[in-house]
Amino acid sequence: MAEILDGSTKALAKGISLVENYKAEGIQLLSNLPKLPAVPVVGITGSPGAGKSTLINALIGFLLQKKMKVGIIAVDPTSPFSHGSLLGDRIRMNDHFTNPSVFIRSMATRGSLGGLSPKIVEAVDLLKAAKFDYIIIETVGVGQSEVEIASLADTTVVVLVPESGDEVQNIKSGVMETADVFVVNKADRPGADAFFNTLKSLVHSKINSNWETPVVKTVADTADGIDELFAAIQSHRNSIHSNEKKIKLLIEKALQLIREKRTADVDFDKLRTQIENEIVGGKQNLYTFVQTNY
Amino acid sequence: MAEILDGSTKALAKGISLVENYKAEGIQLLSNLPKLPAVPVVGITGSPGAGKSTLINALIGFLLQKKMKVGIIAVDPTSPFSHGSLLGDRIRMNDHFTNPSVFIRSMATRGSLGGLSPKIVEAVDLLKAAKFDYIIIETVGVGQSEVEIASLADTTVVVLVPESGDEVQNIKSGVMETADVFVVNKADRPGADAFFNTLKSLVHSKINSNWETPVVKTVADTADGIDELFAAIQSHRNSIHSNEKKIKLLIEKALQLIREKRTADVDFDKLRTQIENEIVGGKQNLYTFVQTNY
Repeated sequence: MAEILDGSTKALAKGISLVENYKAEGIQLLSNLPKLPAVPVVGITGSPGAGKSTLINALIGFLLQKKMKVGIIAVDPTSPFSHGSLLGDRIRMNDHFTNPSVFIRSMATRGSLGGLSPKIVEAVDLLKAAKFDYIIIETVGVGQSEVEIASLADTTVVVLVPESGDEVQNIKSGVMETADVFVVNKADRPGADAFFNTLKSLVHSKINSNWETPVVKTVADTADGIDELFAAIQSHRNSIHSNEKKIKLLIEKALQLIREKRTADVDFDKLRTQIENEIVGGKQNLYTFVQTNY
Repeated sequence: MAEILDGSTKALAKGISLVENYKAEGIQLLSNLPKLPAVPVVGITGSPGAGKSTLINALIGFLLQKKMKVGIIAVDPTSPFSHGSLLGDRIRMNDHFTNPSVFIRSMATRGSLGGLSPKIVEAVDLLKAAKFDYIIIETVGVGQSEVEIASLADTTVVVLVPESGDEVQNIKSGVMETADVFVVNKADRPGADAFFNTLKSLVHSKINSNWETPVVKTVADTADGIDELFAAIQSHRNSIHSNEKKIKLLIEKALQLIREKRTADVDFDKLRTQIENEIVGGKQNLYTFVQTNY
């Protein structure tokens, strides 16, 4: 832990791996966490092709100019942040991948009956302990994942493009509630102004609480509008007065930790063998099997 | 259970509610399930606006002509199947909502750190026990949920529209692996043939196992192509030889049931109070708190 607190990137990376792989040292590490500073956690979500990675890249550049240390967790399976190092597709991240003030980590999504990676909250806590000034979580939308990210991030940014006009129905029904800031990226494309105005009026007609979701135009390729995006995020952060979201997240996380603790003794290989021998062929009912054996 | 086996829709609906709400009678009900018949379970997924509901409606009509009993579980929060009865938007489902051979049930998705509704597997088992001939699960894509649905369904149908051409990059990276059948719906629109051909060649270049994902053109509004869709699903079903997917699903489900059983004693109100008093203000570390108290 001392090395992580001292800012060792290597120790941090190792720490996240220990936690992600359910190692006892990982639990030990988390139990030794100090009281954590209030670091902004910004979720950035949007469909593949909306330009999330380019936008994040531009935002990283902006934050570095402000002398901030930036941590990025990429959960989007289509993101070059996730796959860049594997596929050699580092073109857009060239500047930042080797910068000591930038830490990029991709985390796998969970299997079939899951959702987000179950250890993102812990990874964020470790980044906070390592004194990062700004934490960005990138996920793919539209679907379940942006609801999940909304529970994790202080501010959720939903990235759209002028072509997203077709999705307005969808935006109305789902995303409107989770977005704290809308970005119309690739705003130099045809139709951008019309889409921007539609979104503006949608947002205005749906004010709840005391926050009218701002809509920001960006051209991530040239970093146009990034300063405005940063300001919108800051302004949302300053408007948060309630702990309710944080409490809900802590309850969910506590329940997950309790479940993990109490099922740590389950032998997966044995369970698999039992299922193959007893359940698949129909010798036993799965529900009775669990009730009597576990 | 006897009433469900006898085909009582009311008993079935009540049974699903008992299970969904974690009632002891629900566990009892599941423990009494007989050996279940091999009923086709078809997952239908796609973006909002792709016309999933209209397509399912047409498929229901087709199956009813074959004298089948059809069960539908809607997990898509934007689906009229989910909200139809609430919003009064029954227009498209008029024919089927009141038909005794059709059972439609919407199931809520889980909260923040979740994914699919945790009790869909159980609901499907109850539908099988109630002697339904065909089970359809509707979820929204693109994202995590279609990976989840793929683990649950025997056959996963991904619904696209000619306008989905822009998403081809996304289709390549994610959906290609989960789709067992592609539908190009609204195939009477401009660009449908071009998109169909692109998809065909993509599919052909990505053959794995011994199944080349078929691409079916439909116009759900007029039920054009529904017979072909049905045939493609049947043909995929006949091609399945491996139990691997089923075993993985059973392991996941068993683990979930074990976790639920072992945490049934957790008092949520007490946990919330503890978190509010101890964790939010930073008096205790969450991870240590769980380790020492649970």
